[in-house]
Amino acid sequence: MNAFRSAGLSLGRFPPGARGMMTDVPGVLVGHCTIVHGEGEGAVRTGVTAILPPGDPYAEPLPAGAFVLHGHGKAAGLWQLLHLGELETPIFLTNTLAVPRCADALLTWTLARHPEARSVNPVVLECNDGYLSAIETRPVAEDDALAALGSAGEEFAEGCVGAGTGMVAFGFKSGIGTASRVVGPFAVGALALPNMGRQEDFVPPPGREVGRAAGHAREQATGGSLVVVLATDAPLLPAQLARLARRMALGAARTGAPATAGSGDFFVAFSTGWRILRGTERIQVGFIADRSQTMGDLYRAVAEATAEAIYSALLAATPLIGRDGRGVPPLSPRRTT
Amino acid sequence: MNAFRSAGLSLGRFPPGARGMMTDVPGVLVGHCTIVHGEGEGAVRTGVTAILPPGDPYAEPLPAGAFVLHGHGKAAGLWQLLHLGELETPIFLTNTLAVPRCADALLTWTLARHPEARSVNPVVLECNDGYLSAIETRPVAEDDALAALGSAGEEFAEGCVGAGTGMVAFGFKSGIGTASRVVGPFAVGALALPNMGRQEDFVPPPGREVGRAAGHAREQATGGSLVVVLATDAPLLPAQLARLARRMALGAARTGAPATAGSGDFFVAFSTGWRILRGTERIQVGFIADRSQTMGDLYRAVAEATAEAIYSALLAATPLIGRDGRGVPPLSPRRTT
Amino acid sequence: MNAFRSAGLSLGRFPPGARGMMTDVPGVLVGHCTIVHGEGEGAVRTGVTAILPPGDPYAEPLPAGAFVLHGHGKAAGLWQLLHLGELETPIFLTNTLAVPRCADALLTWTLARHPEARSVNPVVLECNDGYLSAIETRPVAEDDALAALGSAGEEFAEGCVGAGTGMVAFGFKSGIGTASRVVGPFAVGALALPNMGRQEDFVPPPGREVGRAAGHAREQATGGSLVVVLATDAPLLPAQLARLARRMALGAARTGAPATAGSGDFFVAFSTGWRILRGTERIQVGFIADRSQTMGDLYRAVAEATAEAIYSALLAATPLIGRDGRGVPPLSPRRTT
Amino acid sequence: MNAFRSAGLSLGRFPPGARGMMTDVPGVLVGHCTIVHGEGEGAVRTGVTAILPPGDPYAEPLPAGAFVLHGHGKAAGLWQLLHLGELETPIFLTNTLAVPRCADALLTWTLARHPEARSVNPVVLECNDGYLSAIETRPVAEDDALAALGSAGEEFAEGCVGAGTGMVAFGFKSGIGTASRVVGPFAVGALALPNMGRQEDFVPPPGREVGRAAGHAREQATGGSLVVVLATDAPLLPAQLARLARRMALGAARTGAPATAGSGDFFVAFSTGWRILRGTERIQVGFIADRSQTMGDLYRAVAEATAEAIYSALLAATPLIGRDGRGVPPLSPRRTT
Repeated sequence: MNAFRSAGLSLGRFPPGARGMMTDVPGVLVGHCTIVHGEGEGAVRTGVTAILPPGDPYAEPLPAGAFVLHGHGKAAGLWQLLHLGELETPIFLTNTLAVPRCADALLTWTLARHPEARSVNPVVLECNDGYLSAIETRPVAEDDALAALGSAGEEFAEGCVGAGTGMVAFGFKSGIGTASRVVGPFAVGALALPNMGRQEDFVPPPGREVGRAAGHAREQATGGSLVVVLATDAPLLPAQLARLARRMALGAARTGAPATAGSGDFFVAFSTGWRILRGTERIQVGFIADRSQTMGDLYRAVAEATAEAIYSALLAATPLIGRDGRGVPPLSPRRTT
Repeated sequence: MNAFRSAGLSLGRFPPGARGMMTDVPGVLVGHCTIVHGEGEGAVRTGVTAILPPGDPYAEPLPAGAFVLHGHGKAAGLWQLLHLGELETPIFLTNTLAVPRCADALLTWTLARHPEARSVNPVVLECNDGYLSAIETRPVAEDDALAALGSAGEEFAEGCVGAGTGMVAFGFKSGIGTASRVVGPFAVGALALPNMGRQEDFVPPPGREVGRAAGHAREQATGGSLVVVLATDAPLLPAQLARLARRMALGAARTGAPATAGSGDFFVAFSTGWRILRGTERIQVGFIADRSQTMGDLYRAVAEATAEAIYSALLAATPLIGRDGRGVPPLSPRRTT
Repeated sequence: MNAFRSAGLSLGRFPPGARGMMTDVPGVLVGHCTIVHGEGEGAVRTGVTAILPPGDPYAEPLPAGAFVLHGHGKAAGLWQLLHLGELETPIFLTNTLAVPRCADALLTWTLARHPEARSVNPVVLECNDGYLSAIETRPVAEDDALAALGSAGEEFAEGCVGAGTGMVAFGFKSGIGTASRVVGPFAVGALALPNMGRQEDFVPPPGREVGRAAGHAREQATGGSLVVVLATDAPLLPAQLARLARRMALGAARTGAPATAGSGDFFVAFSTGWRILRGTERIQVGFIADRSQTMGDLYRAVAEATAEAIYSALLAATPLIGRDGRGVPPLSPRRTT
Repeated sequence: MNAFRSAGLSLGRFPPGARGMMTDVPGVLVGHCTIVHGEGEGAVRTGVTAILPPGDPYAEPLPAGAFVLHGHGKAAGLWQLLHLGELETPIFLTNTLAVPRCADALLTWTLARHPEARSVNPVVLECNDGYLSAIETRPVAEDDALAALGSAGEEFAEGCVGAGTGMVAFGFKSGIGTASRVVGPFAVGALALPNMGRQEDFVPPPGREVGRAAGHAREQATGGSLVVVLATDAPLLPAQLARLARRMALGAARTGAPATAGSGDFFVAFSTGWRILRGTERIQVGFIADRSQTMGDLYRAVAEATAEAIYSALLAATPLIGRDGRGVPPLSPRRTT
């Protein structure tokens, strides 16, 4: 179970899946590579998180959509994903200045499996961990990204691991968080990388009082960012997945995410429910009707999963001393193990 | 003061303006025309609300932006408003099937003041009041819209008046609501027409418990809609106003607005801080920098004002029996005067 | 055959359909109502053109898409059409200030057939005929629009009829034009309302020299507009139809359409190849794959049909004296019958 | 003068600048790094082209806009460029699989000049040269990109150099091309990388017959791509530059560019006419009014410059034997020096 459920909390009306994790969507795997070394000015606290969709995404792309709430971000691959409605690689999450190398790693990974490939669209999302990590030293190498992908499995850690290592949100230590929902025969699973907001922006989860961390004056000067990826096995058209991505932004808003001027708020959704086959003239799909009860439920469940994944990232985070000795308090003193 | 503040409630970090209303933005006026007649099948419970910007909007258009969160709506005039970044008429809010006649009324109004006009872009927004009103009888006439505009003033009513007459939101009776915020030397003012969501979607305002209305089974079968208009005197570019409109959606999300498949969620923002002059080669503007502290404050204040205007619409609403004897309970039994 | 083919001209690589008209797409009908009266200052030279898709569009909406190249236009209904990907009414073309009344006529028409309707999204497109017609007198009534719809058939006139009556393009008299293409088993049919550009912008059709009209100094002061609607029976997703709409803009560009600052360049495409059924949980569709040969052909055929429809509108136009005795020369003196 | 003018051709109504090149916009510099080695299967025919805006783009970003006609492309940096309206690095053009390393090079370049930078948005555009070059070997290194930038100057070559080395367009050998226009006191300069279309798509430039190359059957199986960058010293808002980018697509359409399913058609425009200063609360700008004569002229001049730059790329290209002994004929046998 994710950190949110493990803390005895609940949120919304739809039940979580068996794990309460993104990997409740069958076949979806998640892995991390955590990079922590050094102290002081050159302290590195960063990493890469990989999302591996089932099957062979390059041979049989997955329908996908996205919503960019505020575009102060360096995401790779979203034009093609959004215009064609296709995801043809795994997805990496990492720090802002590591996007090119992680994109390069996806080329390496895809060409190793498809030597005939001449065009590959790597998808990489990012948040800026420069407050806690010497981001300008660009410590992430291609091998780190491939290691994250190689470690992907159904069970994975939340908190200060992978891309979550150096995150800060609402003035608290943040990390990677996840959540899932069951909607009739379908599952939705979210993976969130929250790195935005001040303490006064924070809306605590239902039923939980959160004390202000005394004396902490951490300012997300440039506003931070928020990246969330959603998987579902519901068969949806790319345009419908783009609409789900908009509901991810609504879920984030309920936690207090402010989407400030320096924020890159990127929401990506993909479906494992059908494939956009290559080399065929016609593609058959039976998609969920927009006006159906199921679609209304999916909209609500996606917002719930997004909010919970954000909270879970905060609840799973542990204290960490980063560059220049900087620390950020965790959300709950009780969890500062 | 708006109904929200009059109920002793508060929300967010930025203070409201003197009135707690959209008209705290200097020169902005609001008026209503309420149309209530008949009982039973043919009961009409509808109206028009008019927002009149200061000055002569046709001669000197105002910079404007918009965000459409979910496009199941019939708004008029938003393509030109969004592509050119200009508002050149007052704005009407009304019911779904009254949009054409209200647009026609804006042509009449503009041509009366500018007989030389050959192209006019009327802006009309709508929500569907067909649950409580015989919307299909199309009871709104051009004169009703002009009456709303003629009555516009700094003081105006909230609740079941004008376009708010037949609204239902979160399973409660809704209406028109307003709120304002002060951000340094600037004011922002929101006017909301909430008509969306079920009771289980509702997130009560901070510090207020809201009981479920026993035995009420009102379903917004097609999901309802939400329309919010924001005025500010901060000098902003049209693209910046479009970004403000996105934060209006975030504020709405905090009340629980679900943006379901049948929802038309339209957010429009305009500035009175400068004018897009016609007949000139160059236009001078000193706009607020994206990365400034003021812009971050505006983003947050806009979300606050939107959420508060939605709550105020619910708190100001009074019981009403509509078509086929249908009634919808108000949010608070204490206010069922 | 359309005026373009009747003049012995051809364009592009794909063959036209049997009629060379939009109605080569089975079931699509087109009709006009032409409104011509008065002389001098109050001369009216306007009208309405109606496109009636096959079947019952309200009960079974058609997949649809759109592209707005430049948004200085007052089109009704495009937000919902574009966001939901659905067309649920016929489409009207008319003058700029007649949009509201034509939209109202679509409400009347739909409610007469579906008294149970509570939400209707009328689609109306427009160009400004204020140079030749007393547009500000708003001479189009709801009955005119309904008359255009009532007269819709497989055979229809091009040139100075319906919405085309008062059009001017490239300094020549313009009107309504049409063209079609056959792409394997599928048809595409375009209907164009060109009202844009100066003579020096014009790119003549292949194989045709066009002399400059001596002494004519007509300036499209605010730039004019261009509206094109495309029908196809190819089964395409809404997002694919939106991409076809982008290729319509490319076809228009090949005629020299400049898309200036005062231009409303709206391109709408719909498919009769499948239906977005209401009241069902799942919708089955077998759509044409993006990477198929057929899709590449459709992209090219759509651009061809759009360019040809624009040329045909010019070639079909006849001399007309409008308001204040204004006249605009036809493209070819030989056709000034 | 560019190859187009050197061949005695002209196009459109606006005069070219002194050089007929993008660098007619004062302060803009262009450089190439050409990478050619090997024969047969492993033949490499690729490179990088760099556009260096005047001043310090990171300290004082330039207003910028973009239009994506068809999004089958891997461009880096366009979300932030488009959402914020800012360009803060030089721009690289390269092959599809070299985008990450060129983006990484822009991080290196920027951090060398601004060690304090923690967030950098590199902008890289691409076309696929996999027909003539062993693209899958990823032969472009970071140093190649930096070399292109280091060589940037006012004079630069067209044709098969830099990113243009392996381009094919309309079945002819293509390359890099450029063109400029003078609009009153302002200059616009375009740099095009055409890699799209079949011979039957091609629309020859005015006054030039182009024979079909006998026996050549080169198919751009996946449709190729087209990338064009435009600079201007006219003071324009980002939204206006995005509108200029749309007119670049119109200019491309006039050459016959088909924008097929596998095409990445990206158009980017930036202005040197003012700066989006950091660290200030207000930004003053006197921008050109949308409805001005100048804006209409700019729209037309931008389309002209884009079309001419595409033609110039074709006219400057020279024969080249690429991977597997593949050759593509040049547009004009007379220029096959």
